[in-house]
Amino acid sequence: MIKAYAAFGAGGEIQPFEYEPGLLSTHEVEIAIEHCGICHSDLSMLHNEWGITQYPFVPGHEIIGTITAKGAHVHNFQLGQRVGLGWHSGYCMTCHDCMSGDHNLCAQAESTIVNRHGGFADRVRANAASVVALPNSINAQTAGPLFCAGITVFNPLLQFNIQPTAKVAVIGIGGLGHVALQFLNAWGCQVTAFTSSDDKKKEALALGAHQVLNSRNPAELGAAKNQFDLILSTVDVKLDWNAYIATLRPKGRLHFLGVILESLDINLFPLISNQCSISGSPVGSPASLETMLNFVVQHDIEPIVEVFRFDQINEALARLASGKAKYRIVLSNQ
Amino acid sequence: MIKAYAAFGAGGEIQPFEYEPGLLSTHEVEIAIEHCGICHSDLSMLHNEWGITQYPFVPGHEIIGTITAKGAHVHNFQLGQRVGLGWHSGYCMTCHDCMSGDHNLCAQAESTIVNRHGGFADRVRANAASVVALPNSINAQTAGPLFCAGITVFNPLLQFNIQPTAKVAVIGIGGLGHVALQFLNAWGCQVTAFTSSDDKKKEALALGAHQVLNSRNPAELGAAKNQFDLILSTVDVKLDWNAYIATLRPKGRLHFLGVILESLDINLFPLISNQCSISGSPVGSPASLETMLNFVVQHDIEPIVEVFRFDQINEALARLASGKAKYRIVLSNQ
Repeated sequence: MIKAYAAFGAGGEIQPFEYEPGLLSTHEVEIAIEHCGICHSDLSMLHNEWGITQYPFVPGHEIIGTITAKGAHVHNFQLGQRVGLGWHSGYCMTCHDCMSGDHNLCAQAESTIVNRHGGFADRVRANAASVVALPNSINAQTAGPLFCAGITVFNPLLQFNIQPTAKVAVIGIGGLGHVALQFLNAWGCQVTAFTSSDDKKKEALALGAHQVLNSRNPAELGAAKNQFDLILSTVDVKLDWNAYIATLRPKGRLHFLGVILESLDINLFPLISNQCSISGSPVGSPASLETMLNFVVQHDIEPIVEVFRFDQINEALARLASGKAKYRIVLSNQ
Repeated sequence: MIKAYAAFGAGGEIQPFEYEPGLLSTHEVEIAIEHCGICHSDLSMLHNEWGITQYPFVPGHEIIGTITAKGAHVHNFQLGQRVGLGWHSGYCMTCHDCMSGDHNLCAQAESTIVNRHGGFADRVRANAASVVALPNSINAQTAGPLFCAGITVFNPLLQFNIQPTAKVAVIGIGGLGHVALQFLNAWGCQVTAFTSSDDKKKEALALGAHQVLNSRNPAELGAAKNQFDLILSTVDVKLDWNAYIATLRPKGRLHFLGVILESLDINLFPLISNQCSISGSPVGSPASLETMLNFVVQHDIEPIVEVFRFDQINEALARLASGKAKYRIVLSNQ
């Protein structure tokens, strides 16, 4: 039996829950979970905001642990090896996107917490193709958030061939944004943080921003015209996107990583006159995860986390919902 | 005196109008106009839809003619040489965008019909940098539309490194769209035309489309899911953009070339899950115009036009406004 923690209805308390995982498939591994980050999408799923949650619901998709069992066809891991598992727990492996290395865009990709049980548990299973080895020099306790928050902000730099000469802004300095600032600084870019709270200014500078603008100050936003090649939005609330588009340079891109359910009201004229783009992307492929982890090692990048024990889950979730966590919460079995 | 045709108020009739152009500047050329296409933006400016029209207003920015005078610093043209002039009649030449070859994104670029007099005339002047030589083998009478409609649809293929393996759709088979189909077919792409009129189906196929879908038929649009790497929208009316986004493949792009004044209501979730982009662009640079003209020569591409004499301008404008012109109207001094 796998000892997990589950919600039994939308927004309900998380309670201990056991389930029988059945036979291990030939391409699966079983991971003994050491640590698991909490992502805003765990909260969204917990509250069934996207209408796809099934209960009992076991959240958790920023998983660090060690391989304790593997199927007959798993050749890329050893028992005892430390690995990470993020949003995806399997891919079809044969569609055009998978065959192109874009597994994260596979229409048949399996999600770690959709219609299956996630990482708020002592063990979890996943297709071995979705699991990535954790380099020894990376701190296991803080590494979980790299597998969702981290790869989500790192992947656009790969996808859009962002150069170190680019001027890049990050909207929202939270779980995703605080890692984005570190990545962008290490990438060599000129980095701007947009934050709504002045007290995060010092922290944003310490994380790698060269400039911090208060997004609630229309004068600061208005004065930033024609500056950025790329803006990464990590927030999940509707902002005045046209004001941000005005801060893009010609050929600039406003790229969304946080899910916003309200529609985007975009004025087309500035997009046409400046050849600007609006786009979005989800997490990254296993190959991109590996590339990211190499970059993390090379540049000593580390998520900043608050650690709770697994039996403090409800307390941890309340802390996350308060918006005060700096910057990510990790549950630990150790 | 330059003998032109001007409107004297918003939406007014076009009447003969003469103006004194003054001394020719050192970097200017004067062009004796042979032919001038009519673009929808001439109509928009005539009706002051963008709020920037000054009257008397001389439309016309798809100009073909010969050099009759040149300033002391103009070395790239000979007197008598046949040239084309499009939307831009000058650039600052020194900003980062100009210096990068992106003159069409220059914030100081001068527009042929904004705050100056355009090509509905016997002569026009422009900075020599904005003028491009017309290859001898191109039909001068039909070439004008290449300098606005043509470059507008050609430029995205350069800007986004579109490969011949791409599946590309064009929304709207009019002045821009009918040239886009020819370009895309010659580019080697699999080409789809979206048109709202079934009677344009045969014509779209003849122009280079491999598939024609009726955009007013929700079933046809709905069945086209996950097909296109690029969609070029050439229309100036609001459509159900989210339905078109659903027809994009992962990493696909919905690119706007026609100006739509109403805001775009875009659902973000499909952009994120499929890493799709929305964008726009305006005309192209002089270098892109040259590249396009070489491609036109190589592939025998030619706009299909209806020719009117310059003294039939009001008749021609009424024909354009009727939406029945196939596909572009050209005024001719010959």
